[in-house]
Amino acid sequence: MERHFHELLADLKRRLVQMSALAETMIGDAVRVLVDRDAAPIAEIRRMEDEVNRMQVEVDETCFTLIALHQPAASDLRFILGALKTNAELERLADEAINVCNKAERLLQEPPLRTLEIVPRMAAIARDMVKSSIDAFIALDAAKARDVLQRDDEVDRLKVEATGVLLGHMAADPACLQRALALILVVRNIERTADHATNIAENAIFVAEGCDVRHHHLA
Amino acid sequence: MERHFHELLADLKRRLVQMSALAETMIGDAVRVLVDRDAAPIAEIRRMEDEVNRMQVEVDETCFTLIALHQPAASDLRFILGALKTNAELERLADEAINVCNKAERLLQEPPLRTLEIVPRMAAIARDMVKSSIDAFIALDAAKARDVLQRDDEVDRLKVEATGVLLGHMAADPACLQRALALILVVRNIERTADHATNIAENAIFVAEGCDVRHHHLA
Repeated sequence: MERHFHELLADLKRRLVQMSALAETMIGDAVRVLVDRDAAPIAEIRRMEDEVNRMQVEVDETCFTLIALHQPAASDLRFILGALKTNAELERLADEAINVCNKAERLLQEPPLRTLEIVPRMAAIARDMVKSSIDAFIALDAAKARDVLQRDDEVDRLKVEATGVLLGHMAADPACLQRALALILVVRNIERTADHATNIAENAIFVAEGCDVRHHHLA
Repeated sequence: MERHFHELLADLKRRLVQMSALAETMIGDAVRVLVDRDAAPIAEIRRMEDEVNRMQVEVDETCFTLIALHQPAASDLRFILGALKTNAELERLADEAINVCNKAERLLQEPPLRTLEIVPRMAAIARDMVKSSIDAFIALDAAKARDVLQRDDEVDRLKVEATGVLLGHMAADPACLQRALALILVVRNIERTADHATNIAENAIFVAEGCDVRHHHLA
């Protein structure tokens, strides 16, 4: 029984890392579709989403089985509940990449807007936050998780900057209204990617320290 | 022990219903701020958010305690894991209301855009979805939960319609670009309110039927 428990737990961690790697690839590739104006990767991004969705269902069931059959110790239980919440974040990360793809598909039918170099820059930070947050969660590294929380401000600042530039495009040329709006929404999808990484980092601190850092201003 | 378990479980359900009621009030009041152009309710909405955040931490701890100390039977365990996920959705529902308040505060500093009657209509549907989803979750009523999933399409349709109207405003009068964008983002906050209700409804079906309805196209 004990051996089986540790195998299942190791399997759970492995899958969370795989899901995170898929989600990172998806968001990177989705932004690349926009920048390169090449729709070819979209089919593969959608295939990856199916994979993330399938893994999400399996991870939830693994969490349930681990608790139901193995009555884990308090620290393992805390990790498993954190994994359950992290699993939901990973699935939503994949959704954000699909949202970017959906907008990119429409944008590629129209003449390009002047390239907005902030978008890939934001995406690179958000991807990095996702990677760091899942690493922090698996390693129960609260210091690394706190670094992720710090970086969210940078993404928010870039979002405000990008939105300002795109509003400027809208004002200068009403013909680009819809395209600029689509890019503003892409910027927000990337912002939410960073938000999901932040949520995973909070889960990491919750498990690592056995306390809750969310809403710490209430403490 | 047994008595204590059922008391904690009843307490968990009561708190989820309270959080949901707060979130419904918050989103209704936030939209009313916009429609009535009266910022007075914002302070109370922010106070309610603090309350939801505090309850979220308590609900997570109650779920942990219920599992760690009482080793619940499989059906109770499934409910508690569903509650943990629903708890996260409720906190995000409150966040969406705060997002609407933040935009409303800025919009009230400027001349009104022509009233967009779709916004309160969408908000009424989204609130109703939140109420029905939490009722379905507590009662483990899968049929009611499926009704919630159906209604999400209506919200998406209204979102597309509202966005079209607001793009029309932008094209007609560049002076209203920022205000129209803020309203487009409010519309998306309400859409996400409905999405959170959908997620809660999926949790209800997951618990009620002991199976996973998410991503059913993969089955």
